[in-house]
Amino acid sequence: MGETASSIVTAAVLVIGDEILSGRTKDKNSGYIADVLTAVGIDLREVRVVPDIEAEIVAAVNALRKRYDYLFTTGGIGPTHDDITAESVAKAFGVPIAVDPRARAMLLTRIAEKDLNEARLRMARVPQGAELIANKISAAPGFNIGNVYVMAGVPAVMQVMLDEVIPTLRTGAKLLSVSIDTGLREGDLGTPYGEIQKQHPDVMMGSYPFFNEKGFFTRLVLRARDAEKLSTAQRDVEAMVERLRAEKKAAV
Amino acid sequence: MGETASSIVTAAVLVIGDEILSGRTKDKNSGYIADVLTAVGIDLREVRVVPDIEAEIVAAVNALRKRYDYLFTTGGIGPTHDDITAESVAKAFGVPIAVDPRARAMLLTRIAEKDLNEARLRMARVPQGAELIANKISAAPGFNIGNVYVMAGVPAVMQVMLDEVIPTLRTGAKLLSVSIDTGLREGDLGTPYGEIQKQHPDVMMGSYPFFNEKGFFTRLVLRARDAEKLSTAQRDVEAMVERLRAEKKAAV
Repeated sequence: MGETASSIVTAAVLVIGDEILSGRTKDKNSGYIADVLTAVGIDLREVRVVPDIEAEIVAAVNALRKRYDYLFTTGGIGPTHDDITAESVAKAFGVPIAVDPRARAMLLTRIAEKDLNEARLRMARVPQGAELIANKISAAPGFNIGNVYVMAGVPAVMQVMLDEVIPTLRTGAKLLSVSIDTGLREGDLGTPYGEIQKQHPDVMMGSYPFFNEKGFFTRLVLRARDAEKLSTAQRDVEAMVERLRAEKKAAV
Repeated sequence: MGETASSIVTAAVLVIGDEILSGRTKDKNSGYIADVLTAVGIDLREVRVVPDIEAEIVAAVNALRKRYDYLFTTGGIGPTHDDITAESVAKAFGVPIAVDPRARAMLLTRIAEKDLNEARLRMARVPQGAELIANKISAAPGFNIGNVYVMAGVPAVMQVMLDEVIPTLRTGAKLLSVSIDTGLREGDLGTPYGEIQKQHPDVMMGSYPFFNEKGFFTRLVLRARDAEKLSTAQRDVEAMVERLRAEKKAAV
């Protein structure tokens, strides 16, 4: 939409876990990551949720890492047999996986050596060539390989890992946005709003209906990377809303 | 995992909307649909979230409808220019789209004829050959074409549409589940739990860590379609948990 390619940085999120697909656990991580990426100027373009099945994880990692600048995964890096994300990512990159001495040392900051059993040691296994992502809550690290960032599924742990990752990322021009409450129903404004969108191709114009006990209403959201283009479009949309409200009042 | 193919019915959810990817709106629909599908015996296997871009919607609809028994979409069927789901689904199926007289009649149950403007009439456009899905809240229908069910994005409206759809679906053997609170950390049980999983290949054994002010704990969830296999596995897991807790107590 008129921006240079380098000013746009894209990302996808891959949520890994049967418990999300069964409904037992509600995914809060993708919405949280969406908020953070938007705030720093990275466009989240796709989210996928897949089960704890190696072939599914490998296929999704490879599809998404090739298509977007960054891929963030959540879930499946604990010590139990159903935690297969690290192995799957290694397979996606075609590299071996082994216990990383740095990761083992991180675990030992929280776990006594005698308790570092086979299961816990699984959490120190990372694909060859990966960099570790610190975990200030429970020590077991995430990791980064290529443009893929592998994080925990427990939201609080994912969030401290994301804090580590964000400052290291390339970010693009931030998407600015304004929100306009119209007091109108979507059907009242659909056609003229669509006309205004055509006149402002560099501004993304969304329309979000909602309802409450007073009736159906619409919030319009305009988004653009250029502040001037955004405010010009905003002026046009606000004028449209005022006109439609006046017409509606006159018709009553 | 030992079931006959016909006893398993699979599904995917496709969430359509820029507002989910920007974080502005948090997706509640996919978690709700997950709960309902699990309850009726349909396995949700994948969720995707894509932006309001026709090529993305077409590609995702075609990928998912071919792979799973059912595909449920949410979002993008309102009256504004950014509502492009119906057109995109028509394109995915390679059929024309036009105003459906049945859908128009549904709109007229709520909207006066004089208010049925061009924008509102967009909500009566459905792909050729589609069946309508009633909307008890705001009249504008969803639709079903092939194995794809196109529903609204507003959660309350999506939910009444899903109520219409569910009784018409083929359902499989329900997945039964039991949940076991262990009072143990994941790393304490990972290895023996993995051994038990190997002995019970028809039972899916998950492990979900969480933490609170008292420390780190683990909930184990066993899922199977066969009640007897499930209870045999449950007995083995509970015996393991008791043994590990006794060992832990003895070590203190």
